[in-house]
Amino acid sequence: MCRWMAYKGKPVYLEELLFQPDHSLIHQSLSARKSEVTVNADGFGLGWYDEREEPGLYHEILPAWSDCNLKSLARHIKSGLFFAHVRASTGASTARSNCHPFSYNEWLFMHNGQVGQYDELRWQIERCIPEELYGHRRGGTDSEAIFLMMVANGLERDPKVAIETTLNQILDMMHTKGITDPLRFTSILSHGSKMWAVRFSSDEHAPSLYYKRFAEHVVVGSEPLDLSGDGWEQVQPGHIMTIEDLTFRSEAMF
Amino acid sequence: MCRWMAYKGKPVYLEELLFQPDHSLIHQSLSARKSEVTVNADGFGLGWYDEREEPGLYHEILPAWSDCNLKSLARHIKSGLFFAHVRASTGASTARSNCHPFSYNEWLFMHNGQVGQYDELRWQIERCIPEELYGHRRGGTDSEAIFLMMVANGLERDPKVAIETTLNQILDMMHTKGITDPLRFTSILSHGSKMWAVRFSSDEHAPSLYYKRFAEHVVVGSEPLDLSGDGWEQVQPGHIMTIEDLTFRSEAMF
Amino acid sequence: MCRWMAYKGKPVYLEELLFQPDHSLIHQSLSARKSEVTVNADGFGLGWYDEREEPGLYHEILPAWSDCNLKSLARHIKSGLFFAHVRASTGASTARSNCHPFSYNEWLFMHNGQVGQYDELRWQIERCIPEELYGHRRGGTDSEAIFLMMVANGLERDPKVAIETTLNQILDMMHTKGITDPLRFTSILSHGSKMWAVRFSSDEHAPSLYYKRFAEHVVVGSEPLDLSGDGWEQVQPGHIMTIEDLTFRSEAMF
Amino acid sequence: MCRWMAYKGKPVYLEELLFQPDHSLIHQSLSARKSEVTVNADGFGLGWYDEREEPGLYHEILPAWSDCNLKSLARHIKSGLFFAHVRASTGASTARSNCHPFSYNEWLFMHNGQVGQYDELRWQIERCIPEELYGHRRGGTDSEAIFLMMVANGLERDPKVAIETTLNQILDMMHTKGITDPLRFTSILSHGSKMWAVRFSSDEHAPSLYYKRFAEHVVVGSEPLDLSGDGWEQVQPGHIMTIEDLTFRSEAMF
Repeated sequence: MCRWMAYKGKPVYLEELLFQPDHSLIHQSLSARKSEVTVNADGFGLGWYDEREEPGLYHEILPAWSDCNLKSLARHIKSGLFFAHVRASTGASTARSNCHPFSYNEWLFMHNGQVGQYDELRWQIERCIPEELYGHRRGGTDSEAIFLMMVANGLERDPKVAIETTLNQILDMMHTKGITDPLRFTSILSHGSKMWAVRFSSDEHAPSLYYKRFAEHVVVGSEPLDLSGDGWEQVQPGHIMTIEDLTFRSEAMF
Repeated sequence: MCRWMAYKGKPVYLEELLFQPDHSLIHQSLSARKSEVTVNADGFGLGWYDEREEPGLYHEILPAWSDCNLKSLARHIKSGLFFAHVRASTGASTARSNCHPFSYNEWLFMHNGQVGQYDELRWQIERCIPEELYGHRRGGTDSEAIFLMMVANGLERDPKVAIETTLNQILDMMHTKGITDPLRFTSILSHGSKMWAVRFSSDEHAPSLYYKRFAEHVVVGSEPLDLSGDGWEQVQPGHIMTIEDLTFRSEAMF
Repeated sequence: MCRWMAYKGKPVYLEELLFQPDHSLIHQSLSARKSEVTVNADGFGLGWYDEREEPGLYHEILPAWSDCNLKSLARHIKSGLFFAHVRASTGASTARSNCHPFSYNEWLFMHNGQVGQYDELRWQIERCIPEELYGHRRGGTDSEAIFLMMVANGLERDPKVAIETTLNQILDMMHTKGITDPLRFTSILSHGSKMWAVRFSSDEHAPSLYYKRFAEHVVVGSEPLDLSGDGWEQVQPGHIMTIEDLTFRSEAMF
Repeated sequence: MCRWMAYKGKPVYLEELLFQPDHSLIHQSLSARKSEVTVNADGFGLGWYDEREEPGLYHEILPAWSDCNLKSLARHIKSGLFFAHVRASTGASTARSNCHPFSYNEWLFMHNGQVGQYDELRWQIERCIPEELYGHRRGGTDSEAIFLMMVANGLERDPKVAIETTLNQILDMMHTKGITDPLRFTSILSHGSKMWAVRFSSDEHAPSLYYKRFAEHVVVGSEPLDLSGDGWEQVQPGHIMTIEDLTFRSEAMF
C-alpha cells in the first residue's frame, strides 16, 4: 500500500506541502499511520502542471526522505496542481518505470491499492491495452496497466465511465479466475484543471482517502497532512469525488 | 548495439576476463572497436554458474567501468561458465530489468542486435509470450521478449529449432507490417554446460561474433579480448555455433 | 541507528543468515525491534572472506529488501566469516561510500552508533587521520573516520588498545568542545579470522549487542536473528568481546 | 576531463540549451570533440537561479543521456542563469556528492581539469578548508575542495583575488612535493548575476573554453554548442573572463 497526495490551488513551492506539514508525505513515507504497511520506501514520484501542456515528471528509486534532489526541486518548483506519491511495492520491482504518477499526454494518474493475485491476471490485463497505447507501457505495475485500460475506455471523454468500465473488466476477470483477494483502488486523475479521486474496494476495506478545503487550495490524500487531522474528511467508499476549482462533488460509482 | 562475452572452461575469477585483458569487456564498454556505437554505458550484467543449479545474476544501471561493486565481485566470484554484457540501449530505458543476461530457470541468454522498428511490433511480440511464461517478463526489451518466445518454442528440448522458429515468427511479423529495417540477432544461450551462439541478420550486416579456443577454456564474444585479435575467428553469419566441452561446431540456420 | 550482524563458522551461503531467519537482518531493515529508529533503509553493505586475502565488498544505496542483486548474491556467495549492515543515516548522505562495512587491507569494520554533534567535530576528527591513511577515506561518515583513527592507533598490532585510544581521543575532543550528547559505539572488527565486538556508550544507553553460539558457528549482531531470542545474550556495556574459533572472551575496556 | 556550459540571458527552458543544439552538452557527453576523453558518463549536474536566493540543484550518477528525469526537468525548468556539467572522473567515485556544480550559499561553481597527482595532495588540500566551512564538504573531489578554498580566500569579496590565491596555494604545494603533473583549471563561478570564467593550466595545455554572445544571451562552455563552431571564441589561457549583463571582460591572472 502506497501513500499519495494531490494539491490544487494557488501556485506554491512543492516543499510547502511535501516537507513542511507535520505529517507531510515525506513524513508518511517513514511512518504511515492509516496503513498496515508503515514504510513507503520503494521509490516515489512527482507530477506537476505549469505553463507547459504536459506535466513535469520526476521519479526516483531512493526513499523520498533521502533524495537530496527532491529537497532542492521541491524548493524551486512551483505549481498550482501537483501529485506526489511514495511507493510500497506490492510485487513489481523498484524501478523508476514502476513509480507513480503515470502520465499520458496531459493526464496524470496515481494509485494506492492492488489487484488481488495480480500475477495470475497480468497476462490478461496487459492484453486489454490496445496496440495504439502499448508504447505507453513503461513498467510492470498493475497501476500503470489499469491507467492505460482507462485511457482505452475513454478516459478523455468521460472519466467516470472509463473508471467504472475498467474496474468492471478487472472484477470480471477476477471472478472468472475464481480470485477472491480484493481489488483495491484508491486513486486520482487529472488533465491539468479538474481532478477525479476514487475510493473503491471490492471488499469492506477500501484504503483511506482524505480531503480538505483550505482558503486558497484543496488537498486530497491517503492521510491528513497534519497529525491532528482536524477538518479532514474521508471520501465515501465506492465513490468518485470530482474536484473543480475548489469544490468537491461526490458521486456513487456503478 | 551492445557488447558481450561468454567464458567456458577451468573455473577462474571473473576479473581475469572482465578486467585484465587489454581489450576486456570493461575496456570495450568505453571504446568498442567493431561497432558503430562505441559507448556501452546503459547498464550491464553478469550471469555465472557455480554449484547451484540456477545461475547467479548481477545487473546494474551504472556504466560498468564505474561500479565499484563489480570490481570486488569480479575479484571474488569464480566460475567455469559465465556471461557478461554491457548495454547500449536501442530504446528501452536504463533499468536493471532491461539488463542482460536474462534468465529462465537454469538458462541464461544475452543478445546484441535489434528488431527493426520494435516499437511497432512490441504489442504483437509480447502477445507471443504465453500466459504461463508471462510472469518471467521483467522489463521492456525486445531481447527479453525474444528469449521468452524461444522458451515457448521449445528451447529446453531443441535450442536450434527454438531459435529458428522464433526468428521466423518475428521475420513474418516484420514482413506483414512492411518493416524493412533489419532483424539483427547475435546472441548466446546456455543451460550451464553447453552454449549456443548465434550470428544472424536479415540483411548483410550481422553484428560481429568472435570465438577462440585457449588451452583450458573458450571465449565467445562481440570482439576479441585482446587488441591484436590473433587467433580469433568469426562465427559465420546465419550460423549457430554449439560449444560443448572446449569444441566448436557450426551449423547453418534454416 | 543502524543494524548489523556478523557470522563466523562453517562456510554457508549468505542467504541462510541474511534472509531465512524469522528476524533476519533483512527483516530488521524494515522493522527493527530493539531500536528507536525502526527503518534502516539508507543503504546497506556486505563484506565477506573467502580464499582471497582481502574481503569481498558489496555496497548499495537501495533498501536491502528491494535489491534483487542482493538476493542472488546471497544465494551464490559462500563464506565462513562475513559482515552485513543495514543503515539508518545519522546525517551523512545516502551514498555507497557511506555504507558499511568499511575495509582497510584485510580488515573489515562496521558500526552502529554515533558521535554526539559530529558536525561540530568532523573537522577535528578528520585531522586525526594521518596523511598515509588519507587515501582510504572514501565517504563522509563518522564511522569511517573512527575506523581510520583506529588503524592509525595500531589496530593491526593491538585492537583493544587501538579502540580504547581512539574512543578516548574522541571523548577528549567532545569534552573540550563542551559536547554533552553521547558517544555511542557498538561495532565489530575482523582481519579474517578473529573478530572483536565492542559495546560502548558514554551514557547509560549503549546500543544493544547480542551474540549466540550455535553448533558450528557464532553470530553477533544488533538483535537476535529469531523472534524468540532464545539463547541470545548481550555483550556487557563497556566491554570488548573477542571471538576466536567459536569461543567468546569478554574484557572490560579502559 | 569533464564538459560544462553556462547560460546567462533571457529566461529559457533548460532543454533549449541542454538538448536542442546539434552539439549540446548532452551530445558532448557521448562524444566530446575537443577533449582526449570522449565519454563523460560519470554523473552530471545542474544548477539554476530563479526567484529563490540560493540556486536549484540536481545531481545524478547516471549518464546524462539516459536520465528520463533530466529530460522532463529540462522541459519544465526555466532560468536566466544556469550551469550544467557532465563528468568524466579523474579518480573520485561516481556519487552525487562528487557531481558539479557545487554550491555555497548563493554561489555556484563547476570545473573541468585536475590537480596533478591529487592523491598525494588531498590530505594537505583538505587541511586548507577552515573549520567553519568544513560542513560544506560533501564529497571527495579536488574540485569541491578548491571551491571551498576559494570561499576561504575571500571569493565573496573579490573573486579574482580568491581564485589567484587558491591556485597559488596549490601550485606551492605541488612544487614542495615535487609534483610535475600539471594543474589544470577551467571553471566558472556565479553568485546569481555576474559570472567569472577561468582558463588556466600550469603547462601549455589549458583545457578549451569557448564563449559566444547571442542577441539576448551569452553561453560559455568547454565546447561550442553547434558543430560549425561559427562565432565562438576561446578565453585566453591564464585569463579570467568576467561576464556582466551580456558583456565579456578578460583579464590576465597573476
